[in-house]
Amino acid sequence: MSIVVIGSLAFDDVVTQHGAIRNAIGGSALYFATAASLFAPVSIVGVVGEDFPLTELEFLRLRKVELDGIQVIKGGKTFRWTGEYELDMNKRKTTRLELNVFKDFKPLLPESCKSAKYVFLGNIDPDIQLDVLEQVESPGFIAADTIECYLEDKPDTFREVLERINLLFINDSEACLFTGKNSIISAARVLLECGPEYVIIKKGEHGSFLVSRDMFFTIPAYPVENIVDPTGAGDSFAGGAMGYCARVDSWDSLTLKKAVVYGSLVASFLVESFSLQGIKNLTLDEIEERLKIFRSMTSY
Amino acid sequence: MSIVVIGSLAFDDVVTQHGAIRNAIGGSALYFATAASLFAPVSIVGVVGEDFPLTELEFLRLRKVELDGIQVIKGGKTFRWTGEYELDMNKRKTTRLELNVFKDFKPLLPESCKSAKYVFLGNIDPDIQLDVLEQVESPGFIAADTIECYLEDKPDTFREVLERINLLFINDSEACLFTGKNSIISAARVLLECGPEYVIIKKGEHGSFLVSRDMFFTIPAYPVENIVDPTGAGDSFAGGAMGYCARVDSWDSLTLKKAVVYGSLVASFLVESFSLQGIKNLTLDEIEERLKIFRSMTSY
Repeated sequence: MSIVVIGSLAFDDVVTQHGAIRNAIGGSALYFATAASLFAPVSIVGVVGEDFPLTELEFLRLRKVELDGIQVIKGGKTFRWTGEYELDMNKRKTTRLELNVFKDFKPLLPESCKSAKYVFLGNIDPDIQLDVLEQVESPGFIAADTIECYLEDKPDTFREVLERINLLFINDSEACLFTGKNSIISAARVLLECGPEYVIIKKGEHGSFLVSRDMFFTIPAYPVENIVDPTGAGDSFAGGAMGYCARVDSWDSLTLKKAVVYGSLVASFLVESFSLQGIKNLTLDEIEERLKIFRSMTSY
Repeated sequence: MSIVVIGSLAFDDVVTQHGAIRNAIGGSALYFATAASLFAPVSIVGVVGEDFPLTELEFLRLRKVELDGIQVIKGGKTFRWTGEYELDMNKRKTTRLELNVFKDFKPLLPESCKSAKYVFLGNIDPDIQLDVLEQVESPGFIAADTIECYLEDKPDTFREVLERINLLFINDSEACLFTGKNSIISAARVLLECGPEYVIIKKGEHGSFLVSRDMFFTIPAYPVENIVDPTGAGDSFAGGAMGYCARVDSWDSLTLKKAVVYGSLVASFLVESFSLQGIKNLTLDEIEERLKIFRSMTSY
């Protein structure tokens, strides 16, 4: 089954303790699509400026990623994110944010995307997330991610999104911020009450939780000794997870548990290198190999 | 098989977001022994002042804990720890520390303890830890815990301890502090090179790692929604883990993995209440019940 993802395409300037990278192509939609396309066909809906090197997306086209939903704004400049990670890689500082063409973005889903069964709303403005939901015809499974600034600036719109999705991906700190709870278990409970069937709380190198009204699942992260660049880890986690669901075409509890494991493993490959390098040439066989190791590391 | 534990017996004054408790009996030896005695016979070696209510240890005697190794110093005052936990319960501040009788403590192992097969050195002065090792005759499995101040004040003595133990229990932040590494996986590797066969790195609510030269194991913590008081969590974790090893009388990799799970579950009961309350009346059946739940929460 195919997935449509709406999210950002960006230039990233990133500094970590392992070095720096400038003008790396990134954004939530790209990280998600690169991860998800390992498992299932993906269509990207997004916007870039004329400065964006679309030729660099050739590797995605080879992986059956549909790029027709990417609008190119003539004379426009692509969204740019500049950030720095602390020694504790779970903490990062956005030093500069240029929305550029993203500021006036009106998503327009190509006809081919409207019938998608799986929809992923990247961590963009919740008004845009809602706009996309108006355009899809009869989605089966909708997931969304978010980011701190929208929880602070548009909590009510975000609540509307929550009412309409099946699965929310959210960071531990964001979950606590939005719900006003200190415990992420309590936070997850509150989020479930807002609408989604499932909530996945991401804790970075500390693993993740998956909760529904009658299920609780938790795994540690695959231990990566040298985290080089965590940018896009959450998006590639979501991509791996949604990709797995679309591949087996199911979203029951057992599928979601496995999806969390696959998402986590894809993210573990991603953070080992800068930008998209860690998953650009990744194969399903390599993921399955790491899954075997992970099983042996977590079985008792 | 029986375990001898050397460590502190204390009065604890604790403040958490859930309230405060004063004059609670505690200390690493008590937390450890209460947990370990759920699985195997334990002997405590330690020191208290005349002010310590030994009658409050009656519940331990009923659980076959040998208390003859507890020296009572006439006219002396018991060790006292005063601490406060932040909203993030992984962080705590020691607001006052009175060593009292612990300052001049010279451990003297009763004859009955010298032949113990399992030895646990609580997080006390590494010089005292070494002193104890001189007194045990032919221990099979020795584990030690430590605490930040001794890593800073006596790193060389702590290195000597590392050379003589089979298993080290250590916090993530302490492991990074002692080894100068940012990654706890790298830190664990350095610690293994210092001597122990196994290193267990405790990450509080984020779970734990167990590593040896050829094995890596990690589990999330059992999710406790309301952490009331984390005091003694590390000691009761160690108690549950060592207790399990002594019960099955083994310390191979598979046993250690299970030991980590049992230790983690005992600690999950402990933190649900103030002081020792959470494990004082705990039974093995309740632990096995929680193990079933934990398995279902972590299986995929």
